[in-house]
Amino acid sequence: MSDLRGGIDLGGTKIQTAIIDAEGAVKGEARHPTPTKGGPADVAAAMGKALVEAAEAAGVEASELEGVGVGSPGDVDEKAGTVSTARNLPDWEGSFPLGDALEKDLGTKVRIGNDVQVATEAEYHLGAGQGLDSLIGVFWGTGVGGGLILGGKPWLGRGAAGEIGHMVIKRGGAKCPCGRRGCMEAYSGRAAMEAEARRRQEDGEKTDLFKLMEKHGKPRLTSSIWDRAIDNGDKLAIELIDRAIEALGTGIASAINLLDPEAIIIGGGLGLRFGERYMEPLLEEMRKHVFFETMPDVKMASLGDLGGAIGASLLVSR
Amino acid sequence: MSDLRGGIDLGGTKIQTAIIDAEGAVKGEARHPTPTKGGPADVAAAMGKALVEAAEAAGVEASELEGVGVGSPGDVDEKAGTVSTARNLPDWEGSFPLGDALEKDLGTKVRIGNDVQVATEAEYHLGAGQGLDSLIGVFWGTGVGGGLILGGKPWLGRGAAGEIGHMVIKRGGAKCPCGRRGCMEAYSGRAAMEAEARRRQEDGEKTDLFKLMEKHGKPRLTSSIWDRAIDNGDKLAIELIDRAIEALGTGIASAINLLDPEAIIIGGGLGLRFGERYMEPLLEEMRKHVFFETMPDVKMASLGDLGGAIGASLLVSR
Repeated sequence: MSDLRGGIDLGGTKIQTAIIDAEGAVKGEARHPTPTKGGPADVAAAMGKALVEAAEAAGVEASELEGVGVGSPGDVDEKAGTVSTARNLPDWEGSFPLGDALEKDLGTKVRIGNDVQVATEAEYHLGAGQGLDSLIGVFWGTGVGGGLILGGKPWLGRGAAGEIGHMVIKRGGAKCPCGRRGCMEAYSGRAAMEAEARRRQEDGEKTDLFKLMEKHGKPRLTSSIWDRAIDNGDKLAIELIDRAIEALGTGIASAINLLDPEAIIIGGGLGLRFGERYMEPLLEEMRKHVFFETMPDVKMASLGDLGGAIGASLLVSR
Repeated sequence: MSDLRGGIDLGGTKIQTAIIDAEGAVKGEARHPTPTKGGPADVAAAMGKALVEAAEAAGVEASELEGVGVGSPGDVDEKAGTVSTARNLPDWEGSFPLGDALEKDLGTKVRIGNDVQVATEAEYHLGAGQGLDSLIGVFWGTGVGGGLILGGKPWLGRGAAGEIGHMVIKRGGAKCPCGRRGCMEAYSGRAAMEAEARRRQEDGEKTDLFKLMEKHGKPRLTSSIWDRAIDNGDKLAIELIDRAIEALGTGIASAINLLDPEAIIIGGGLGLRFGERYMEPLLEEMRKHVFFETMPDVKMASLGDLGGAIGASLLVSR
């Protein structure tokens, strides 16, 4: 048995794995695309393969690991080790015993947690949130997820706290992928932004977003495609990113007014790509709505793309 | 020295005092209007007088009390016992040593806390929130204040958490008394509702609200005036209350999505008067926006008008 632990960050587009030592240093990593066909068992098999590859890179057998943690989307039952209604994953509506499947595959114990919450805990223990008492992690990607640390501890509520993306920023406003109206994510989530860009293009607005997507062989408007379009001065892309930043600033300000935390930490695919570049407009929007004289610190997530896998590995010692 | 404690709820319109025994039972109470002229020292004198009156009703001298707690609006420094920027109170912009002034007057120790937070703690320890692990207190009155209990403990953030009334429910929406735009309080607070009714009347809309106010000798549109106008079928009054309920439901839903608490407790002047009557439309509005399958319980504050004073008395044993 080594003192190394594995972490798996299960996303809608990629599976990121990492092997972490007791001090939180990354000893090996691997990344695979998430299967788009099949079902939960196929996804579990791909996760196992990616973890074994990271273990090889770290010079250890998977079965020698102290354990493996998984950060998963969908409804996670930490005790049972099951995941259900993971809508961005193939045919994963029902409950699947992901923990058991991976334990059999890898020969070590497996713990499962919520993807956004483990990424927030990673930033708190090892990243931009070290030494703070309270913070809100805002993960801006396909959706907008939130994780809370209050009084030095994760706050989960009845089990699912942190849905900052579904705080309402405009009553009666845009339709959200969740089906409700006016959520922050309806303006800021990558999926909602792509749907809006497509509608606008169909309505005759000009944009190179979808041409760029095809040119670079992407199945969707990834953060790199948005980045290129903005650099090219694409008007629609610029307008939709500005709109996303306004919605983020408004929703984050509402969360601040309720919780008065020490810091906000911005991560996620779009967050890591655009957070620094758009920090000033984001802060400006927040200042319009924050009720307190002193704003909390707004920081970029410092563990980057690996934050989810590192946070997942922390589940092992719980 | 008795085991009785005093509590003072300092409001913009009234000073409510109560004497409470070790089990939380009310042994005496008194209520006085808040002075509208003078300054902090005059308000402190009126508070002392009201507390002495409650003590007499309980058959005890103020100096025999274990202590007296005060729930105050404005910026409260609990350690220093000072209150500043209490904008609804006469000439109370600067800092005033309310604790020292009352200690001299009453001859017993005095503790000061935030009015909404102590009312929330009263409901948690002795009222509708007993036995719960997490709740949000929503006090719907002149403004809309919030208090948080998370993991069985008050959550104050950096000191001022709970500003649920200033969560944004409509970006770019109505101007709030706080100066910002689109806050829940801009639609739901009594003061904002009164200002809107006045504007609409000046624009030619018909309403009996202000006639009723004069007829009943009130200086403002109190909850009882709104109640009468609605009972009379006053269209503008009904429209503005419906609008207030929609805004409350939206803002509360946002808070639930972030915190996933076990319960919401509704109090405050308007809350106590209209909460039960409008519970169904409030829940309906919340259901439109709550992200979780299971709604938290929504309960009425059970300590009523005395909750603030009872909660204030709990500060003594901190």
